Amino acid sequence: MDIRKALITAAGKNQRTLPLQSLVDRDGVTKTALAIIIEEILSAGIEKIGVVISPGDEAAYRVAAGTHASRLTFIEQSEPRGYAHAIHSAAEFCDGDPFLLLVGDHLYLSNTEKGCAQQLVEIARAENCAVSAVQSTHESKLPYYGAVGGQLVNAVQHLYQVEAVLEKPTPTEAEQKLDVPGLRAGYYLCFFGMHVLTPAVQRILRELFTDNDRVNFRTALAHLAEHERYLAAELAGRRYDFGVKYGLLTAQLALALSGRDRDEVLRGLVELMATN
Amino acid sequence: MDIRKALITAAGKNQRTLPLQSLVDRDGVTKTALAIIIEEILSAGIEKIGVVISPGDEAAYRVAAGTHASRLTFIEQSEPRGYAHAIHSAAEFCDGDPFLLLVGDHLYLSNTEKGCAQQLVEIARAENCAVSAVQSTHESKLPYYGAVGGQLVNAVQHLYQVEAVLEKPTPTEAEQKLDVPGLRAGYYLCFFGMHVLTPAVQRILRELFTDNDRVNFRTALAHLAEHERYLAAELAGRRYDFGVKYGLLTAQLALALSGRDRDEVLRGLVELMATN
Repeated sequence: MDIRKALITAAGKNQRTLPLQSLVDRDGVTKTALAIIIEEILSAGIEKIGVVISPGDEAAYRVAAGTHASRLTFIEQSEPRGYAHAIHSAAEFCDGDPFLLLVGDHLYLSNTEKGCAQQLVEIARAENCAVSAVQSTHESKLPYYGAVGGQLVNAVQHLYQVEAVLEKPTPTEAEQKLDVPGLRAGYYLCFFGMHVLTPAVQRILRELFTDNDRVNFRTALAHLAEHERYLAAELAGRRYDFGVKYGLLTAQLALALSGRDRDEVLRGLVELMATN
Repeated sequence: MDIRKALITAAGKNQRTLPLQSLVDRDGVTKTALAIIIEEILSAGIEKIGVVISPGDEAAYRVAAGTHASRLTFIEQSEPRGYAHAIHSAAEFCDGDPFLLLVGDHLYLSNTEKGCAQQLVEIARAENCAVSAVQSTHESKLPYYGAVGGQLVNAVQHLYQVEAVLEKPTPTEAEQKLDVPGLRAGYYLCFFGMHVLTPAVQRILRELFTDNDRVNFRTALAHLAEHERYLAAELAGRRYDFGVKYGLLTAQLALALSGRDRDEVLRGLVELMATN
């Protein structure tokens, strides 16, 4: 499976200005969150990037993308109808091709030489099917995430065949439907905010939106799992949701502490704590 | 002297997007840097605020100001001709009145119940003259700041009569012209980025711009010191320039460590260091 397109969703009401925020990356270069996300995509070998935005945001996003602006196709989501609708708005951009899907308010820090997006795209290419990145997550955090259940297919690569998809399940639901052999007790595979999806997903969304005004994206993924081989992969890295309170602070510190300015930033931290 | 107007300069090429950055304030509320600066001004009892911006930035600034947008008068600086020109662009807004002047890329954390702007405005009201906030600064940092020399007039209030103003002086120049009795050896009074200015300043700027294409703001302040009583005040607080590398990180940490979420943020820091 050849993956040449990526989609970033950034049209959510509380999410619109997040990709425009300024951060210093691991190499010590100040840039916008959008530029960091675009570079994550480029490092996975993908050069065509669609960005789903609210009407009127294109000019600010072009500035925020800097030298990468020419790679972007902007798709305006005409009404605020949620995540599944945002993805479906980009059906024409996807045009029957598989695509990497990222959210505009998460940053990813890989533990290896390969970025998280690159790890995921390589798995999807090799396995020739849709793959969602997941993270083993304690049941106390189930109210915040979508989660999948399934069978381990490759222990070395931490790959699972998805059999069930639930949105913010209760612990009882999770225990009954999302048990994954091999995980620690009380832990489940929750979404990481990064997927490689097949053309079937846009077809499923079209069918769901024919019959419904609002569609939950997990419903589409559950349909996908019924019709195609659909995997989940635990990547070697961590995600940072900078849309939550102090999320930008945490993402910036994580970038700095894992980057070339680690010593400088640690020194600054100590100085600051001494004066506050 | 009645001070009812404030001016924020935010038209600098590398400064335009800084007031739009998102921060969590001392009360744990997420808002833009612009909103935090506006609240600093309001807490000083000033309600009319002019903002000098680059052409085209008004819409984004209105959104960033949130509920305070209706208080703002936007002044477009037609060409990027520097700080003095930005202030002079607002001559019509100032309209012969004294004004509080702030830069759009600094945040201030007071050590007392009163905000830094309030401290400064109260001094200017009581002394009935222009007052620049200053900070005792080691000579190694002279290359980054403007600095003043003068005589101590009130030791309790840390008030000085300004006799000389220099832009980024060398240590030798500083030693010869900016020596201030009472400061530690090797320390000088450097600008803090906050001034209360009299109508004379706009008159001086008009005259300087009649004869020159570019004017350094320190030149105007030096003229002011020759013609009027002009004070410098060390305030009880610290300034955070978030336009420098890691400036947003430092400003955010300083806000958080001096605010209601201190314990939560410290816990987050320790967790993050444990995993990085």
